Amino acid sequence: MKQPIGIFDSGVGGLTVYNSIRKHFPYEDLIYFGDTARVPYGPKSPNTIIDYSLQNARFLLQHNIKILVVACNTSSAYALPHLSNLSDIPIISVIDPGARQAVTLSQKSRIGVIGTEGTIRSGAYTSEILKLNPQTQIWAVACPLFVPIVEEGWQDSQVAYDIANHYLSFFNDKEIDVLILGCTHYPLLKNTIQQVIGSSVTLVDSAEAIANYLCDYVDRDRYEVPGKDRFFVSDNEDKFARLAERILVNHPSYLKRVRLYESWFVDSTV
Amino acid sequence: MKQPIGIFDSGVGGLTVYNSIRKHFPYEDLIYFGDTARVPYGPKSPNTIIDYSLQNARFLLQHNIKILVVACNTSSAYALPHLSNLSDIPIISVIDPGARQAVTLSQKSRIGVIGTEGTIRSGAYTSEILKLNPQTQIWAVACPLFVPIVEEGWQDSQVAYDIANHYLSFFNDKEIDVLILGCTHYPLLKNTIQQVIGSSVTLVDSAEAIANYLCDYVDRDRYEVPGKDRFFVSDNEDKFARLAERILVNHPSYLKRVRLYESWFVDSTV
Repeated sequence: MKQPIGIFDSGVGGLTVYNSIRKHFPYEDLIYFGDTARVPYGPKSPNTIIDYSLQNARFLLQHNIKILVVACNTSSAYALPHLSNLSDIPIISVIDPGARQAVTLSQKSRIGVIGTEGTIRSGAYTSEILKLNPQTQIWAVACPLFVPIVEEGWQDSQVAYDIANHYLSFFNDKEIDVLILGCTHYPLLKNTIQQVIGSSVTLVDSAEAIANYLCDYVDRDRYEVPGKDRFFVSDNEDKFARLAERILVNHPSYLKRVRLYESWFVDSTV
Repeated sequence: MKQPIGIFDSGVGGLTVYNSIRKHFPYEDLIYFGDTARVPYGPKSPNTIIDYSLQNARFLLQHNIKILVVACNTSSAYALPHLSNLSDIPIISVIDPGARQAVTLSQKSRIGVIGTEGTIRSGAYTSEILKLNPQTQIWAVACPLFVPIVEEGWQDSQVAYDIANHYLSFFNDKEIDVLILGCTHYPLLKNTIQQVIGSSVTLVDSAEAIANYLCDYVDRDRYEVPGKDRFFVSDNEDKFARLAERILVNHPSYLKRVRLYESWFVDSTV
């Protein structure tokens, strides 16, 4: 029996990663989990992000996945060492492939990174880039309004342009030649970001980078039947289906809601 | 022993309600819960909002509260009948007081409502207003970017003005004389909203309205000692404390994180 590749994200943004993997591996079974009931992760604390990521991974591991792809940059930035304790299967984050591609593409070794508050605060891209090339100069800035702008469907609006202008003006005097889109939502804002940052800067889309990277771990086997897709979400599936139609080529045919059981307790350690 | 008044919100926005209650009832003990680990509620589905609201209420009921204030408009819009099944204590939402004040203030009986996607979709303000005055004409519009704008601290920026202009242009030909700020974050955008909508429109702040309304349920007793405050949040308390300083007069001295135990299961009914 084919073992699926598992992918999780805080919501719909990770579908850009899913798309890219589906394109490169048409015969693989894929299983996607979007934590739409608790999205967004970006503004939340490391401990909460780690808790949520572990729960998401446990859910996917129940489905006998052979490889775990962490499509959410914020989860990748904080939860990776914790996820490794869960299982022996390979775990691929978006940080490593994105950093690698940026270092390869930057001729000036001057790289910019944009992401959520959590991703930028973690310094994960910076330390990964410096491992690959310690001479690189790196500037990073959080763009918290980009996710809601995309979720609102305003990615090509004047407001999106103004907000991008505000955030990206930080790079004006930095002479970067590569900018990492360190959040799965940002590829959907690519046109606006490219327009603001200028054509001399190459944008690195982690969603694209990760699919190339997966080739080291997954054989491009040709099975008799094309790969199957299963989508799970923690909030209502209707809204996910609606947003997914803007990102996916096909309507998600297998889409189920996963519910949470929860109980509160006061953390006496804080 | 004094029984506290319990207040819950999806995050920090409900502190505008807390402020108003604290001002009007200086001798009451207050206990506030902000679900910062799962904020925002506005874009999520009714079922998820109901689940979260019930969990929040159960947490507060454990603290022997005598009255429950639902400071979150989205929770108020969907969860009220479900919350009533939990307990016999009075439950006060922000919808009813806001609607009542709007009807009292509107001389033209032409009222506008702004809120999150969830609140507007629910039609809760509309049906509450029509109960009070069936002749009222009501126009409602969702403003999903207002919450992230406030969380980002951009409430008085040009971007905030442009976004407000975009959303509120809907009311241009409606000749409303009252606009309900149907989300606890929106009072923090009051200046920008007033500037865009014009001085002929009176803004109704549910946070203010609810405190007046509470007088029907809580005696203004004078105890020997001023009321105590306890704050609980579901995500890290540091960030809440930082945001709270912009809203509260005092630094929250009693602030604890509450953690969740969770497990996933696939909902076979969907």
